[in-house]
Formats: sequence, C-alpha cells, structure tokens
Amino acid sequence: MSKDIIIALDVMGGDKAPDMVLKGADIALVRYPELRFVLAGAEDRISPVLAKLPKLKAASAIIHAEDVVAGNAKPSAAVRGGRRSSMRLAIDAVAEGKAHCVVSAGNTGALMAMAKVVLKTVPGIDRPAMAQFLPTSRGETVLLDLGANVECDADNLVQFALMGDAFARAVLGLVKPTIGLLNVGSEEQKGNEAVREAHARLRAGIPGLVYHGFVEGDDIASGTVDVIVTDGFSGNIALKTAEGYGKLFFEFLQSAFRSSLLAQIGYVFARPALMKLRDRLDPRRHNGAMLVGLTGIVVKSHGGADAMGFANAIGVAHDLRSNGFLDRIKEELAVLGAPVPAAV
Amino acid sequence: MSKDIIIALDVMGGDKAPDMVLKGADIALVRYPELRFVLAGAEDRISPVLAKLPKLKAASAIIHAEDVVAGNAKPSAAVRGGRRSSMRLAIDAVAEGKAHCVVSAGNTGALMAMAKVVLKTVPGIDRPAMAQFLPTSRGETVLLDLGANVECDADNLVQFALMGDAFARAVLGLVKPTIGLLNVGSEEQKGNEAVREAHARLRAGIPGLVYHGFVEGDDIASGTVDVIVTDGFSGNIALKTAEGYGKLFFEFLQSAFRSSLLAQIGYVFARPALMKLRDRLDPRRHNGAMLVGLTGIVVKSHGGADAMGFANAIGVAHDLRSNGFLDRIKEELAVLGAPVPAAV
Repeated sequence: MSKDIIIALDVMGGDKAPDMVLKGADIALVRYPELRFVLAGAEDRISPVLAKLPKLKAASAIIHAEDVVAGNAKPSAAVRGGRRSSMRLAIDAVAEGKAHCVVSAGNTGALMAMAKVVLKTVPGIDRPAMAQFLPTSRGETVLLDLGANVECDADNLVQFALMGDAFARAVLGLVKPTIGLLNVGSEEQKGNEAVREAHARLRAGIPGLVYHGFVEGDDIASGTVDVIVTDGFSGNIALKTAEGYGKLFFEFLQSAFRSSLLAQIGYVFARPALMKLRDRLDPRRHNGAMLVGLTGIVVKSHGGADAMGFANAIGVAHDLRSNGFLDRIKEELAVLGAPVPAAV
Repeated sequence: MSKDIIIALDVMGGDKAPDMVLKGADIALVRYPELRFVLAGAEDRISPVLAKLPKLKAASAIIHAEDVVAGNAKPSAAVRGGRRSSMRLAIDAVAEGKAHCVVSAGNTGALMAMAKVVLKTVPGIDRPAMAQFLPTSRGETVLLDLGANVECDADNLVQFALMGDAFARAVLGLVKPTIGLLNVGSEEQKGNEAVREAHARLRAGIPGLVYHGFVEGDDIASGTVDVIVTDGFSGNIALKTAEGYGKLFFEFLQSAFRSSLLAQIGYVFARPALMKLRDRLDPRRHNGAMLVGLTGIVVKSHGGADAMGFANAIGVAHDLRSNGFLDRIKEELAVLGAPVPAAV
C-alpha cells in the first residue's frame, strides 16, 4: 500500500467555499506532504484558485460537480436530488475506492444522510453519530452525538457508547476509556426515558465497556470521563455553548488587559504564555468532527471555518486514516457490539 | 408596608447545609440590613450555629422541621411524604404570608414540585420554569428552562418565552427584550417537533413579544438575544457546560501565568485587572435561579454552593422582591398571555 493518503473534498461546502476549502487543503499539504486530494466541485470555480496554488494543483484531481447541496436543504431532498452535488461526488469517491476519506464543511444533515446511504453503517449500528474531542482539565474528552441525531432512543445511546469507546481506544490509544451518559443530575431517576433506559442497560454491563454512570454538563470541561454520550440535540448545544464561552473569555481577557496601564505592561511580559493559551483553546484546533459508525472516514468541518480551521479538519481525516482507525473501530465493535444486553 | 424583606430559608438543603446556608444568610444580612429570615430546619442543628452569629440570630425566627428532602428523593415522593421537611415548611411560610420569598439549595425537582403544589402557577402557565442570567458579550442573557422540565412540548416552550420576556422586562428593565429559541441550527426544518412547532407559533406573532427566531449554543455567550428559551434538559446542560468551561479557563490561565518567569512578572502587573475579570465571571455571582411562573418568589441555589454563593442567591430573592417582580410578571403575563395563537 502506498503511504499516500487521498482525501476527497467537498469543495463547494461551507460559508466561505470554495476558496476556504482550497486554501485549507494547501495548508494541510504543507503539514502532510503525503496527502493527495480529489476535489469535487465546479471546475470553473476551482481552476482559477488552483492556478495560484501550484503545489496543491500538482497533488489534486478534479471531479466536476454541477450541483451544490444548499445549507438549508432537507437531508432527504439532498439524498434524492443531490446525486451530482460536490458533497455526493466526494462521498462517492470514497465508496469507489478513489479516496480514503471525505471532508466537508457543508450541510451536516445532508452529509450524514448521504454518507449513510452511500457508505452504510458498520454492522450493529443503526445510526452514525458525530464525535469530536473537546479540551478538558485532564486532556481531551470525546463527545458524541454532536447533532447528527436530534432525537435518540436508548438503543442509539447505547450504540453511541460503543462507538465512543472504540473511538477513544483507537485515536487516544486508551486501554480502558471511561464512559459517561450526559444528564441533568447524577441520580437514577433523573432525565428522560431514553437516558434512564440507556443508563440501566449500560450499568447492567457490556463486555469491555467501563461505564462510569451519569455525568453533567460541567463534567465535560473537568474531564471526569473519557467519552461523554448524549443525543444530538444536547450534544450540539453543549459543544456550541463551550465554543461560545471560549470566545467570550478571550474577549473579556483582552478587555482586562486593556483596562489599565499596569495591565498593559503585564500583557507585554505575559504575551508569549497567553498566545500559547489561546492556541490551546482555539476552536479551530478542534475543528473536524468525525461521523462514526460508517464504513468510511467522513469528517465534518464547521460550516463557518476559515482555511486554517479547514486544514485542521483535513488533519483529523489524515490522522484517522494513518492510525488505521477504521479497521480498529470495526474490530472493537465486532467484539463489543454483540450481544448488547436487553433492558433490565 | 414595612420595608423589611423576609426570606424563608430551607436551612437543611444543599451539600454543605446547614452551616453554608446560615453563613450565607449572615453575609447577605451585612449587604442588605433590611433582610429578616425564617429559618426552616432542625432546631438542634441551627441553634449552635446561630449562637456564633448574633446578628443573624437577632434577625431570624426558627421553624423547626423534623425532616429533610433527600438529594435523590423523587419529586412526587417529596410532595407526599415531605410535609414536615425544611423545604416544605420554608415554602409554606411564603404561602402563609410569613415570608416574601423562599431560597433553597436542596433537591431541584422536589423544590419545583412542592412549590407548584403549595404556591400554584400564575394563570396561563402550565409548568413553572427555572430562569437565570448568564454573562454574555453584551451584558446578560436570561436562559430558561434550566432543568425544571426535562421534557417540554411546544405549549411549554411558548409559555417559557412569555415568562422569559416578562422576567427580562421586570428585572433587566428592558422595554422590548428579544427572544430566541435554542436549536441545533437556524434553518426552519432543524430540531425536534416541539421546537419547530413553538417556532412556528412564535413566528406567527404574539402581541408584545419580539421573537428573533432560532439561536444556537454559541449565541448564549455572544448575547444575540435577551432571552433564550429551551427545554430543561438542554438548558441544564448548556448552563453547566458554560460553568465548567468558565472554571477550566481560569485553570488554564493560571497555568499559563506559571509557565515562565516572564509570565510570572506579567501576572504581578496584571493581577488587579485579572482579579476583576475573575469576579466578573465567578459562577457564584450568578448563583440563584428563579422558579418563574409561580405566585411566589422561589429561588434555587446551586446544591454545591458555598456561603458566598448562597448569599448571592439570597441577593437575587431580595432584588426580585424589592423590584416588585411578582406584580410585574403577573401584569405582563395577563397582557401577553392571552390569547396565545394556536399552531399555524
């Protein structure tokens, strides 16, 4: 096997596409010279940008796509009507073996629906989930689902626990990741029915899975567990709330340093350390959520990402491929996934 | 009317009760000398602490309570079996006109259930909601529900919008607060059925209400709207996620300042500005959520609050009473609440 890693890009997806996508790919190529790209999108939009990025041009092949999946398109409509869209053709490239991974900053619901139709789920998984690392006091925690499944039953949540476990083992290299179920309290009777039933099943025990129990919103930042499982509605809100407050802290910090002459002097001395802190918490560093549970590597970038953020999402796809994540997650699921005990 | 404000305290509620509650009351009394307290709890636990707090003792009356509502008690069981509990007797004191407000750091579900049974909801409101201010880029935003109602239908969400509007008008003094509905995206088809139906009804227009539309998790910190409406599950997770990341940010900031000699020197200069920043974001400052929609003022403190945090929760009750919040919210709801248009 060649050590080239081929990434199919949905060049037309994202608020600042196609420029942001292509510039992001160019940045990623500097970091990982073994990358090759399949660029799915409007040829007449791609070619002028590529002309200015000769290294990227040399590492890329274009697949012309007439259509774009609109940001507000319904997933079902995108699946039916979007067969010639840049998103679909990028996913097709993975299904046809022309690329190892797909990265898109386009419509999340459409990406999930299309990827599920084209790439199928791993045996034992009903619905794929969106998973991402978040910074915590103890390192990083995997949070899933982040919005792929707005309504979830207990089966989905138990499957997310299995996928999160496999993800943390494969990517973080943890031997026994701990799993928590996000809830509004730690007592048995708290939460909705889906959460309570999933809790009972996870507590009853699933071979190889280390279930910690219920966790709450503040356990995300404190890193209480390695994997936090929740439905896509709450997970999406938790992720974006964390991002929003991350941004707000830096605003407040900036205004604190501007608030007095002494503080301004202090800033001059502390600047290098503060820059490192900013990098550590930069949401762009954590851009790139994986759609887990599919037979292919599908990475979703923030729709509003800039080129640097998109390059990081490509980096996530690169790491997943080079760590052999897909084989590992399938193995884990085969061992862990069957049989899932019924509700107690 | 005397200008005294009488607060009934559930002295036995909270992780560090009763000491934390009594010390918190003592701190609040220094800030607001017009406060008087009704202390509901075990007399033999209260008296020794009061003996060391003579000013608080002089401003307080004890109502002996034999029972405590356990942190893991089911709300229905607490209502039935907790008639002699400190929480219940504190609520009863408000119902009987012996106190103006009740403050508890105890079991949230039990507090809501008991308060609803004893104090009843304002006409037009099915279920009370928990509301609190959070710091934002533009000032403060009211978020509700924060966990009182884990599962909500469109009716509940529309009522929360009305209550949040009245809360922001009465307490923030805003003339036309803007209202947003928390969702996983801003497009019409996003979210679950309850959210979509509530959106359609709010968009159709309710007299006096300024509906902005869907907002996302990062709109909390950016202060996009004055009031953010959501179900108690997501709201609780959003609140605690924000608190958790607030704490993490200061941990990271501390370690950044310790990371080099230059940074340490910078810290010496910037310290006063950073202390102000810490105060601005201190979650204890925002401790004290109000149960809105009831005929009495009920404030819930964090269960894990310390005395300073509990004093702030008492401060919230004080402010609500001194601003005549209850009369204002009833007036607002009378004007705004009827008729609520049906779904379109």
